[in-house]
Amino acid sequence: MRKRLSVEDYTAGILAGDRIMLSQAITVTESSLPADKELAAAILKKMLPRSGNALRIGITGIPGVGKSTFIESFGTYLTSLGKQVAVLAVDPSSQKSRGSILGDKTRMERLSLNPKAYIRPSATGLFLGGIARSTREIMLLCEAAGFDIILIETVGVGQSETLVKGITDFFLLLMLAGAGDELQGIKKGIMEMADAIAINKADGNNEQAAALAVSAYQNALHLFPKADSGFATEVLTCSALRENGMETIWKLIQNFEQTTRANGFFDQNRQNQNLNWMHDRIRQSLENRFFNDPMIKTRLAALENAVREGRELPDSAAEDLLRVFLTK
Amino acid sequence: MRKRLSVEDYTAGILAGDRIMLSQAITVTESSLPADKELAAAILKKMLPRSGNALRIGITGIPGVGKSTFIESFGTYLTSLGKQVAVLAVDPSSQKSRGSILGDKTRMERLSLNPKAYIRPSATGLFLGGIARSTREIMLLCEAAGFDIILIETVGVGQSETLVKGITDFFLLLMLAGAGDELQGIKKGIMEMADAIAINKADGNNEQAAALAVSAYQNALHLFPKADSGFATEVLTCSALRENGMETIWKLIQNFEQTTRANGFFDQNRQNQNLNWMHDRIRQSLENRFFNDPMIKTRLAALENAVREGRELPDSAAEDLLRVFLTK
Repeated sequence: MRKRLSVEDYTAGILAGDRIMLSQAITVTESSLPADKELAAAILKKMLPRSGNALRIGITGIPGVGKSTFIESFGTYLTSLGKQVAVLAVDPSSQKSRGSILGDKTRMERLSLNPKAYIRPSATGLFLGGIARSTREIMLLCEAAGFDIILIETVGVGQSETLVKGITDFFLLLMLAGAGDELQGIKKGIMEMADAIAINKADGNNEQAAALAVSAYQNALHLFPKADSGFATEVLTCSALRENGMETIWKLIQNFEQTTRANGFFDQNRQNQNLNWMHDRIRQSLENRFFNDPMIKTRLAALENAVREGRELPDSAAEDLLRVFLTK
Repeated sequence: MRKRLSVEDYTAGILAGDRIMLSQAITVTESSLPADKELAAAILKKMLPRSGNALRIGITGIPGVGKSTFIESFGTYLTSLGKQVAVLAVDPSSQKSRGSILGDKTRMERLSLNPKAYIRPSATGLFLGGIARSTREIMLLCEAAGFDIILIETVGVGQSETLVKGITDFFLLLMLAGAGDELQGIKKGIMEMADAIAINKADGNNEQAAALAVSAYQNALHLFPKADSGFATEVLTCSALRENGMETIWKLIQNFEQTTRANGFFDQNRQNQNLNWMHDRIRQSLENRFFNDPMIKTRLAALENAVREGRELPDSAAEDLLRVFLTK
């Protein structure tokens, strides 16, 4: 049995930058046991005023684009500048395989041995919303522990990018040269979420194709309106394997931070993120209670079939169910 | 005072294709009086089995793109093929001006006099969700009245396209040549909602620019994955003013219908739309009840401020409010 420490033990350990204490607090945060949930809430409440000082960077791209190599290379570069870097992951696919994209730390061998870096594999056994929730909380704990930069890795499919976009300051999309086919796995609208697009594997024979991809994406991006940040999405190349382009990307991110802090977007965005998170949570909980209500469960399937097949009006079916739910 | 008829009077009139009866039933549907709501629900319930036989086409584009002229031209073309055409609108902006984009029927002078066409201005005084809801219901009534094609016009800003996309079979985006600047008003992601893009005003000096725009958009679309329909988004030109391109667009839409009926997407999409509509309605009603609850109202503002400024965790604020709401 894991020993549970006191709130004070955990918080003192986190604030002192004790990695073992941080890891244990994260484990408590990911737990679904009621006693752990209470403890986690108390720890988080104490850590909240000490959080918020890191730069939060989301990194996405389809499997095979080289995310791990990129994070290894970029993270190492950042530590060489004296930065403390925490690496987290939102990866719903890891649940199926019972492994994690970051679970195999050998994929980031150098970074995992780097004393300025901290890699936390993504939790398994949680639904996507749960993973995102715990990732958000882990991020706050890492900030309280003194990390300067949080890198959050996610896969380029499904809803996970929207969730990561909703908790980060800067969103980087990794792509490959040879525009078209390999994008099949990229979720619609994701290009428009990106603050920057980096064409990875721009090395060797691939350099020319990467340069072509840059202009293709730049042209495509011209067709879209400017982001709310006031910062036009940039497209650049890098080779994570050869460690090329890391400085350029870091300068771009710094430029983004300066621009958006100056125009007020940076703080406004974080405030909106906090508020959206609260509202999303309210919505989710209301829906969970509704759809898990035994009275609703017994009626739902039949009504859904009738609505699907056009035998019942969606509006009256919804009204009927709400009446049942709210007048118990 | 408007005289209220019986459910049987309305439904018999609608099924006989009586335009005056249809218009009166629509007015009942748009009403917010409790007695009218009950009557409207009864009419709709009766008409539901007779609805669903029209092709539902959504048409969007920024103000100035020529939507009214397009609908006048395209609608007239469709009636020349013997089709009965109903024109509806989802236009939240009309609420502010207390006018409607379709209210001024002189903007569609020819079509409004055409016996095979029926133009219904959008309701005013409703919130966007309410407009969409009544538009969906009006569409069902028009189908029961025997219309073959429903054209639903919406403006290219805000959430109205998502709503129209959610009730139509085919979604047409009208654009102008000169890619870039004039797109500022187009909502992010809307290009990816479109089943086809028509560059309007491709006439006179503008023809060359329109051709250039076609290839620019085609290139941009290549970067995106194929739609769920299995139908690749096409880009073409038209001149609604000169009535050029109407046949091409109609052939494209017929091709879309054939393809998606054959691959099963057409029916599947309508079933999903019905189900999504029901679920959206449940969500909206739950949220409305929550945020309009007097106990929630007294607590919300202070908690929102605390969350926005990072003094309170979004998750615990949400939990606190839900406890208040559900344990009354």
